[in-house]
Amino acid sequence: MRAIEPIPDTMQAAVLHAYDGAPDSLRIETRPVPRPQRGQALVKMSAAPINPSDLMFLKGLYGVLKPLPVAPGWEGAGRVVATGDDWLSRMLLGKRVACAAPNQRDGTWAEYMLTSSARCIPLSDSISDEAGAMLIVNPLTAWALMDIARRGGHRAFVQTAAASALGRMLARLSLHFGVEGVHIVRREEQAELLRSMGARHVLNSEADGFDEQLRTVCREVGATIAFEAVSGMTAARVLRALPDGGRLVLYGALSESPLMADPRDLIFQRKRVEGFWLADWLAKRTLWQQLRLARQIQNALGDLLRSEIAGRYPLHETHRALQEYQASMTAGKRLLVMNLK
Amino acid sequence: MRAIEPIPDTMQAAVLHAYDGAPDSLRIETRPVPRPQRGQALVKMSAAPINPSDLMFLKGLYGVLKPLPVAPGWEGAGRVVATGDDWLSRMLLGKRVACAAPNQRDGTWAEYMLTSSARCIPLSDSISDEAGAMLIVNPLTAWALMDIARRGGHRAFVQTAAASALGRMLARLSLHFGVEGVHIVRREEQAELLRSMGARHVLNSEADGFDEQLRTVCREVGATIAFEAVSGMTAARVLRALPDGGRLVLYGALSESPLMADPRDLIFQRKRVEGFWLADWLAKRTLWQQLRLARQIQNALGDLLRSEIAGRYPLHETHRALQEYQASMTAGKRLLVMNLK
Repeated sequence: MRAIEPIPDTMQAAVLHAYDGAPDSLRIETRPVPRPQRGQALVKMSAAPINPSDLMFLKGLYGVLKPLPVAPGWEGAGRVVATGDDWLSRMLLGKRVACAAPNQRDGTWAEYMLTSSARCIPLSDSISDEAGAMLIVNPLTAWALMDIARRGGHRAFVQTAAASALGRMLARLSLHFGVEGVHIVRREEQAELLRSMGARHVLNSEADGFDEQLRTVCREVGATIAFEAVSGMTAARVLRALPDGGRLVLYGALSESPLMADPRDLIFQRKRVEGFWLADWLAKRTLWQQLRLARQIQNALGDLLRSEIAGRYPLHETHRALQEYQASMTAGKRLLVMNLK
Repeated sequence: MRAIEPIPDTMQAAVLHAYDGAPDSLRIETRPVPRPQRGQALVKMSAAPINPSDLMFLKGLYGVLKPLPVAPGWEGAGRVVATGDDWLSRMLLGKRVACAAPNQRDGTWAEYMLTSSARCIPLSDSISDEAGAMLIVNPLTAWALMDIARRGGHRAFVQTAAASALGRMLARLSLHFGVEGVHIVRREEQAELLRSMGARHVLNSEADGFDEQLRTVCREVGATIAFEAVSGMTAARVLRALPDGGRLVLYGALSESPLMADPRDLIFQRKRVEGFWLADWLAKRTLWQQLRLARQIQNALGDLLRSEIAGRYPLHETHRALQEYQASMTAGKRLLVMNLK
């Protein structure tokens, strides 16, 4: 192990004890600070956001179930303070990084996190720790979905949960790349927000005549793919509105309901349903492509891929951060800030 | 027009007046007998089956809504008694044919049907009118599904509604081509029926432990594709049981419920949902491929692709035929027999 400063034996962390979504199951506790082996980096965390994928993880609805007890948190930023004694890891020593949690062990809602060196992205000086903490999950997903739309030759796309942090990024990318977007929200103030960003086609799914309007606008702009994050009947309504041969890509399940689909859309209208998971999408990229991507994302992080921050919370206020995030996701991201002086 | 016998001005037909599934909406009435134009053949019907797709059509759930009033019935057999004066149509004059209904006009539940000459398949002498009447919908679909499994390199498949006429054909094709099948039924006597045919993996979805058994057998035999005809929660359970990357092909919706799917299967396990419609599959084949297919199907019609007949009904007993079919589909096909002497 190489280190740039003394590593304490213990740390504070948010620790999950059951995948039941109960507040009591998540406690602030003292945990040992693990030591990096070959290929690993120990990150002294400075900030970590709460994302919808974290909420799913707490309830056991995420694609990965880690052995319990475990610290949640899929992404964050900090400084690499110790590494294993290999070439790649040594390169990271002392660097500020955005980092993703390992698949089997403690995550980012802690004072330190041990992860694979390959899951650390060095941050350029222009990126703050706070912005860097939100570099991976939303920006990369938005970028990947836009990539899917463009490579698939889709002239336009539909997206649900369009006022979410990710939805807003996708709306900005849509304007930037000239791929028309049809943005679905659930409240009028969310619709206003998207219109104020320059989005042309914004529909409120709670409004009268929504289904007919969505169908009409899909045909007008030629939307042949949908990025859907709600599941349940929302998926069925979006699939219904897509033209013949349309493709629905599910990347979230905010409603926590099974996806529904009208058999007629699948059988007689050749529509398809599939999923998107960032981990899979990234795994298909070469190391070189991933490095190029990391640079592109960082360049766009202050602008197209920026996240609004609605609140900062010390680690021991994780419960309040979770409550306030679930009460209003549209307001912006909630950040856990660690190692505050 | 060319004709081999005098064509009457009127005929008896079952006529649908509303897509509501109400018995009163289907009536036996007198209709004019249409005259063939260029590219068309007038078939004097001898038999026509009731298929699940006909039940969907009566309720307005099928992919095609014809202008009402209209005679239902998607397939049947009979003799071409008049044609338009073009080369292809003249070739059919006087021939016994299997025939499919046009997309916009009267179908096969009538004494005569006018259809496109391209929708008529001349029957070889070894095929009876009754067998020929059931040549298209089920045998071609079973053949197409097996083709999809084989071309996709799937070692094994899952099928629901396995005791249906189509399900039994697929079970026989499975044994014939050495592509292992996992057959799902809803009653123990259906399971016995399939086992008596030589099927090795038969599961009853109503039995305790079904989901776990299905998952286990899918892994054992390497079933990576499912042919699903029930929709609703059945689709979700089958999708859940498939291994990572599995593909569910919906070709029917016997439950008349929306398809359901667990978001985790789509997002984290790369599973996909799509539909199958015979009309689409056939449209992708060249005329030459279709002719070859017609010969293959006829060769297998007495054996691999045979249908069991549970009852024959004159046209004026269409209602009784429908009732008895819906009461027990497993018992076998119900045939409407026309122009009986």
